[in-house]
Amino acid sequence: MFRATSRSWRSISNTVRSSRDHLPARVTLLKPPTRLYTSGSSSSTSYRSYGATILVSSIAAVVLTQVWNSQNQIQCDDGALTIKTPAERDEAYVTPTKASELIPSNQDPKYATKEEIDQAIEVLKGKLKEDQVSTNPDELLSHGVSANTYHAAAIPNVVVYAESTEDVSAVMKLANEYRIPVTPFSGGTSLEGHITCPYGGICVDLSRMDKILELHAEDSDAVVQAGCQWEAINEEFKERGLNLFFPLDPGPSACIGGMMATGCSGTNAVRYGTAKGEWFLNATVVLPNGEIIKTRQRSRKSSAGYDLTKLFIGAEGTLGIVTEATIRLAPVLPTRVAVCGFPGVEEAVSAVGEVINQGVAMQCVELCDTLMMEAIGKFGNVSMPLPTLDTIFFKFQGSNAEAIEQNVKIVSEISKKHGGQDLVFAKNDRESDELWSARKSAHWSAMALVEGSTCYSTDVCVPVSNLPKLVKQTKEDLKENGIVGPLLGHVGDGNFHCALIFKADVPGEFEKVDAAAHRMVKRAIALQGTCTGEHGVGIGKREYLPLELGEGTIAVMKQLKNALDPKGIMNPGKVGIMLCLTWLP
Amino acid sequence: MFRATSRSWRSISNTVRSSRDHLPARVTLLKPPTRLYTSGSSSSTSYRSYGATILVSSIAAVVLTQVWNSQNQIQCDDGALTIKTPAERDEAYVTPTKASELIPSNQDPKYATKEEIDQAIEVLKGKLKEDQVSTNPDELLSHGVSANTYHAAAIPNVVVYAESTEDVSAVMKLANEYRIPVTPFSGGTSLEGHITCPYGGICVDLSRMDKILELHAEDSDAVVQAGCQWEAINEEFKERGLNLFFPLDPGPSACIGGMMATGCSGTNAVRYGTAKGEWFLNATVVLPNGEIIKTRQRSRKSSAGYDLTKLFIGAEGTLGIVTEATIRLAPVLPTRVAVCGFPGVEEAVSAVGEVINQGVAMQCVELCDTLMMEAIGKFGNVSMPLPTLDTIFFKFQGSNAEAIEQNVKIVSEISKKHGGQDLVFAKNDRESDELWSARKSAHWSAMALVEGSTCYSTDVCVPVSNLPKLVKQTKEDLKENGIVGPLLGHVGDGNFHCALIFKADVPGEFEKVDAAAHRMVKRAIALQGTCTGEHGVGIGKREYLPLELGEGTIAVMKQLKNALDPKGIMNPGKVGIMLCLTWLP
Repeated sequence: MFRATSRSWRSISNTVRSSRDHLPARVTLLKPPTRLYTSGSSSSTSYRSYGATILVSSIAAVVLTQVWNSQNQIQCDDGALTIKTPAERDEAYVTPTKASELIPSNQDPKYATKEEIDQAIEVLKGKLKEDQVSTNPDELLSHGVSANTYHAAAIPNVVVYAESTEDVSAVMKLANEYRIPVTPFSGGTSLEGHITCPYGGICVDLSRMDKILELHAEDSDAVVQAGCQWEAINEEFKERGLNLFFPLDPGPSACIGGMMATGCSGTNAVRYGTAKGEWFLNATVVLPNGEIIKTRQRSRKSSAGYDLTKLFIGAEGTLGIVTEATIRLAPVLPTRVAVCGFPGVEEAVSAVGEVINQGVAMQCVELCDTLMMEAIGKFGNVSMPLPTLDTIFFKFQGSNAEAIEQNVKIVSEISKKHGGQDLVFAKNDRESDELWSARKSAHWSAMALVEGSTCYSTDVCVPVSNLPKLVKQTKEDLKENGIVGPLLGHVGDGNFHCALIFKADVPGEFEKVDAAAHRMVKRAIALQGTCTGEHGVGIGKREYLPLELGEGTIAVMKQLKNALDPKGIMNPGKVGIMLCLTWLP
Repeated sequence: MFRATSRSWRSISNTVRSSRDHLPARVTLLKPPTRLYTSGSSSSTSYRSYGATILVSSIAAVVLTQVWNSQNQIQCDDGALTIKTPAERDEAYVTPTKASELIPSNQDPKYATKEEIDQAIEVLKGKLKEDQVSTNPDELLSHGVSANTYHAAAIPNVVVYAESTEDVSAVMKLANEYRIPVTPFSGGTSLEGHITCPYGGICVDLSRMDKILELHAEDSDAVVQAGCQWEAINEEFKERGLNLFFPLDPGPSACIGGMMATGCSGTNAVRYGTAKGEWFLNATVVLPNGEIIKTRQRSRKSSAGYDLTKLFIGAEGTLGIVTEATIRLAPVLPTRVAVCGFPGVEEAVSAVGEVINQGVAMQCVELCDTLMMEAIGKFGNVSMPLPTLDTIFFKFQGSNAEAIEQNVKIVSEISKKHGGQDLVFAKNDRESDELWSARKSAHWSAMALVEGSTCYSTDVCVPVSNLPKLVKQTKEDLKENGIVGPLLGHVGDGNFHCALIFKADVPGEFEKVDAAAHRMVKRAIALQGTCTGEHGVGIGKREYLPLELGEGTIAVMKQLKNALDPKGIMNPGKVGIMLCLTWLP
């Protein structure tokens, strides 16, 4: 139904497509690779076709490998597990910068050797169809290295395109037998390096598992495969004339598998909560030993035993591979967008707090700071007049137009009380779409602020009342360091992203924004917050887990990891806790 | 702040008090014990003062021990862990029916002997204040045996009244050293025998840890101790003039610790979800080895590592003891109650489905079947005219009266479409309270249907569309077996309870209702549902986990249990999976 083609590229192109209408002229549209995923192609042809993005990403990745190696001095609670020298870590990461460097790393003595993996690949070829097992360098590259991040990256030895839970089980059984690292891959949109393969091994691509298996409209739920994109699911429902949708809305092209793995959320979280709430009723999971389990039945509630569904949500594929899930759906309600400029972030946050505490039905409450509003105003292709202030985008929700109008009145009054301007209110669906697309164009508009730039995206979350302080400190920091960094945030939840704009080809620029991002994370943790509100840990945030959670809490995570994956083959190197496990003797 | 006195009694008396206004004359009010919890009292004095309830409970418990022993033939997936004979299980359970039988069971060779426990109690007395450590038989009885259930029960060797997380840690360290079973106790309102002590050991009573430690109104959250009752928390907020509340509403007197342990919910779940949602932002937990961890920081969202908060929610105290939690709060909104009679459960459920899919703001949607409405009509002390049909109680919610009125119109139309009568709509707060109290009186009204009866309460949950079928089958079953069993349900979630009315002193009646309850559970599981929607597994539902979840899923739960509690000392005998673990050699 949602057949995948050129997966990684699809992620990029969808991101672009969804913002295409509002793409500023100064941002160069990426061209699709000519032969990506074409079996038997020479690696160089399609590698080059990745163009500047991969090149920039790769340069940055090499830089970051060094930065990371020099900075990452985590001491695990068990001395024996400490990574002793940066050199040891270097061995694990091979960041290909050109095609000839496409060599997977199989350096860790506790995993299978290159020769054993080659043997296992032959076995896999015997078990699966020809087009399900690929060692094509282009595919290895597109699965191990992401254009979305600047983290160190490495490729797998083989990509397996699973078409069923049984396929995944067969792969895991073999990997378990041979001790081969396995990295799951669904949408490939990860921002923190979740999909990269520092120890080589098998990438299990779930993108062919993209079916809605069952639809229970009367129960407001559906059983879907892990490779389903959330937008595709919602489009499908719309086509079928169903007044239901799945309300988790992370980045474009994200799939159910990755959404569960990262414990995702998005702009709808202020109304519907996150993936860690109750939107996943159950999951079918292939365990590290290849066994298939279903975490629970389909009823909306259950208190029968440990909440295993939640164990796999946010585990980033390190405990097993989710292949199917029952998702809960919400009714599609009429919405209307309004925009309000405030004298400062503090006033905006206070107003939002009061709006929420009044129980005004609100689907989204998004903040764009003054700089971001300038960018949107210049490059966002919006004809309606927008404030150039710290601005809130409200998406009202209601069972009908009257209900929404009532709420708009309430919000208008509250906003004024907190120094807000008159609401710019969409009179109809067209205007509503236009205003919302202004918010959606933020990422690209931000990049257009500096010609030829790229964007380093961060993600932190703090208790809402600490958000103004964090924003203030961050803005001062960016100003001091001469960094262009417009902000946008899911302000109803205290979660915000900073688009750190830099030129990858100017020496020192990457290091500057990278250092700023790290300072922001430390600041967020000091304000009772987290290093990641929704992007996940991956390899990008793992160094912060001890600081944020404490060694005792991490020790429990390690116990869980060891219990379920004693050989450490599930997505090794991801989440701070695994850093240690992967170096077990 | 919420100082506990006569804890178990408080649970009972609060339940009574909250329904007192509507208590039918035919239901005898329990009298508080004269000297319960009085140190040094002879056991018989206060034991007798428990009155008929405990006596009935105890008789039933003995009966159930036998029923359970004869029926419970669970085969664990590891043959070596199978309980071989009912006699072995018998040894573990001592159900005291009179004071002289108050002997804790210390029969299991993998736990400390009676002598070792006595030694440990002396150590505890040295570490804690005199009034924190009790071996008073009344207190042992009130902590190990619950008037709320008819399950087999046994008493601990000692009750420790913890006053801080550090106290709990000290107890757990000692228990870990001596291999003493530990059972946590907060509200004592459990319906499935979670608090009973089949292997004796230490009961850690958290009722003195009943403080709101921090209140962050601007973040809509609060840090509370595990012994806080949810009603007390909400009362406290009201007294402080705060327009916020904690929306999880299980039975009266339930405390945060037990609410997390069972993954509770209640009538508000249709709007706010359950304890497994996002109402607990983090938890402070004492692990089985005595170590203290905090699962995460206080921000509303976090994707930083495994979701350990969720690991302890629904774990029924078998993985550690939650001592504190950050709870998220919701704004108090105006509500209004309306009641609508339908020709049958199917029509009622269809109407509710349509109401919810229209996005009508609804705090509660509760079903009472015809028989329950008859009971309420006769004994519920409600002056307003109520339908004697399968009836839905709607609790509307809105930011103001206008918003509610609009929604009432919508619901009225939808109800009529599904054959519903005219809505009985509360015109003001007084009428709203009266209508809602009719729903709240259901339990006691049901018991009044049969003079001198008691009530066996069950809890199952199925996908909403399967609810009419389950209700129909259940009603037929009850009719065939001559059982009075009015139904009430959180119908918006497919969760319902059946109040199985029986006379404990009539031979065979208990067995009859018990068998009916078990058939209902099997039926629910066959309809893609669960053996427990909100009460938890305890000892009452553990035999159904293999049928509901499959052996592979239970094996994962066992791996988690073994990883965190290798000595099996945390609340042994609870949740199906532990049945096996507790018999490990």
